[in-house]
Amino acid sequence: MIKPTLVEKKKEKLILITNDDGYQAKGLKTLIDVVKPMGDLMVIAPSESRSGMSHAITVKHPIRVKKIKEEQGLTMLCCNGTPVDCVKLALNKLLDRVPDLVLAGINHGSNSSASILYSGTMAAALEGCLNGIPSIGFSLLDYSPDADFSGTLKYIGDIVRKTLTSGIPEGTCLNVNFPQENKQGFKGVKICRQTRGRWIEKFDKRKDPQQKTYYWLTGEFTNLEPDAEDTDEWALKNHYVSIVPAQTDLTSYKAIDHIKKWDLSQDIR
Amino acid sequence: MIKPTLVEKKKEKLILITNDDGYQAKGLKTLIDVVKPMGDLMVIAPSESRSGMSHAITVKHPIRVKKIKEEQGLTMLCCNGTPVDCVKLALNKLLDRVPDLVLAGINHGSNSSASILYSGTMAAALEGCLNGIPSIGFSLLDYSPDADFSGTLKYIGDIVRKTLTSGIPEGTCLNVNFPQENKQGFKGVKICRQTRGRWIEKFDKRKDPQQKTYYWLTGEFTNLEPDAEDTDEWALKNHYVSIVPAQTDLTSYKAIDHIKKWDLSQDIR
Repeated sequence: MIKPTLVEKKKEKLILITNDDGYQAKGLKTLIDVVKPMGDLMVIAPSESRSGMSHAITVKHPIRVKKIKEEQGLTMLCCNGTPVDCVKLALNKLLDRVPDLVLAGINHGSNSSASILYSGTMAAALEGCLNGIPSIGFSLLDYSPDADFSGTLKYIGDIVRKTLTSGIPEGTCLNVNFPQENKQGFKGVKICRQTRGRWIEKFDKRKDPQQKTYYWLTGEFTNLEPDAEDTDEWALKNHYVSIVPAQTDLTSYKAIDHIKKWDLSQDIR
Repeated sequence: MIKPTLVEKKKEKLILITNDDGYQAKGLKTLIDVVKPMGDLMVIAPSESRSGMSHAITVKHPIRVKKIKEEQGLTMLCCNGTPVDCVKLALNKLLDRVPDLVLAGINHGSNSSASILYSGTMAAALEGCLNGIPSIGFSLLDYSPDADFSGTLKYIGDIVRKTLTSGIPEGTCLNVNFPQENKQGFKGVKICRQTRGRWIEKFDKRKDPQQKTYYWLTGEFTNLEPDAEDTDEWALKNHYVSIVPAQTDLTSYKAIDHIKKWDLSQDIR
């Protein structure tokens, strides 16, 4: 077992941090800087960008872990796994106590609306949540590697402190998205629901030098309810920070009665 | 654009099929055999097993598509993408009309309870659902490559026919799991909710020939509510086919009020 220095100081809060942009990402460094005063940090992040990995896990090849940094209150590792692998590895193998919090991000790019389903950042938060640990994913609507995160700092501090003191309802984690920075700053925070929307893909069809066809995935997001003021997309478009409480239970309770009417339940033995 | 023969026969139902075990899997072949009489089939599946890929998409390298088979009413392709890539590619590039149904499976292994979050099979169904198409993922609780799917045939036929005639509520798809075959057969169908449970990982720590450490992911499922008779795990353990209506909206509506009380919403401009 890798024994981080933080294991010896039992009294501090223990915060597990990961991301999907890789351990060198500016967003991860920003998140570490904000929460470092709040507890001991165990950071384990992919060795390179693993965007769009969703809840993928690595079952077909081995995972290797590398130590990047170890200093007072901070152990930083990277591995060749996905964000969810990082959380699983930390919880089940690397840490000898359960962290008080799992944080993911700050993602370079939006994870609002249906993007939550593709997001490695939010998958890491959902994985923490599955394990009964308060978990939060943070994302900024700016894909640039040198995105300006300065406006997010105060909000992240507030949200993390509040989560450490109040907790989050079981089976729920938080999907926090920040609008792209502008001179006016953010208007405040809105607690939202996930917008109904989808990505319309435009696969770019190309020929390689051997004249064989290949496709590049590109796409555009379509908001199916642009006027709904209780949605995350509306909040972000109107310069609010959006927080969607997200759950790991995918059951559509409304649909259960509909399907029950199908009368498939006969005993056919 | 690849123009499948099926595009010419506009009157038939068009069914898009994928899986996460790869185009050569027995479960896929079984599913094709069951639904072939019901419409024209476009099958596009990963070229090899992509289990545990969840909702991952391929954004960092190109996708190549290969034609495996083309016959009356059936076009079969494979690609180096994930199950969700397969659905996106078919809907946005390969097909010139919207399919009536998206099917995924039959998966070799369970996708019940929290496994839905890791499953490429169910991600493909959720992707169909995101696109407004009735979608179903089928899984058998048997990981063996030569699993016996014979007991599933009648049920799959019934469920697919019912879906084609009655539809599924918008924003919902079906997660259908079959118990492992036994001599008694299945007891019938239960419409269930997703069991609260999680995977407890046991990363196997090993040394490679160069004496460097690596980890293999293995794990065991823990059911957090083994006695709840309305859950999929209970149904499967008691030899019922389980159907969980699953949704793409991850919002925890119950948690919204809790988080609103945090009073983070002040305008700080």
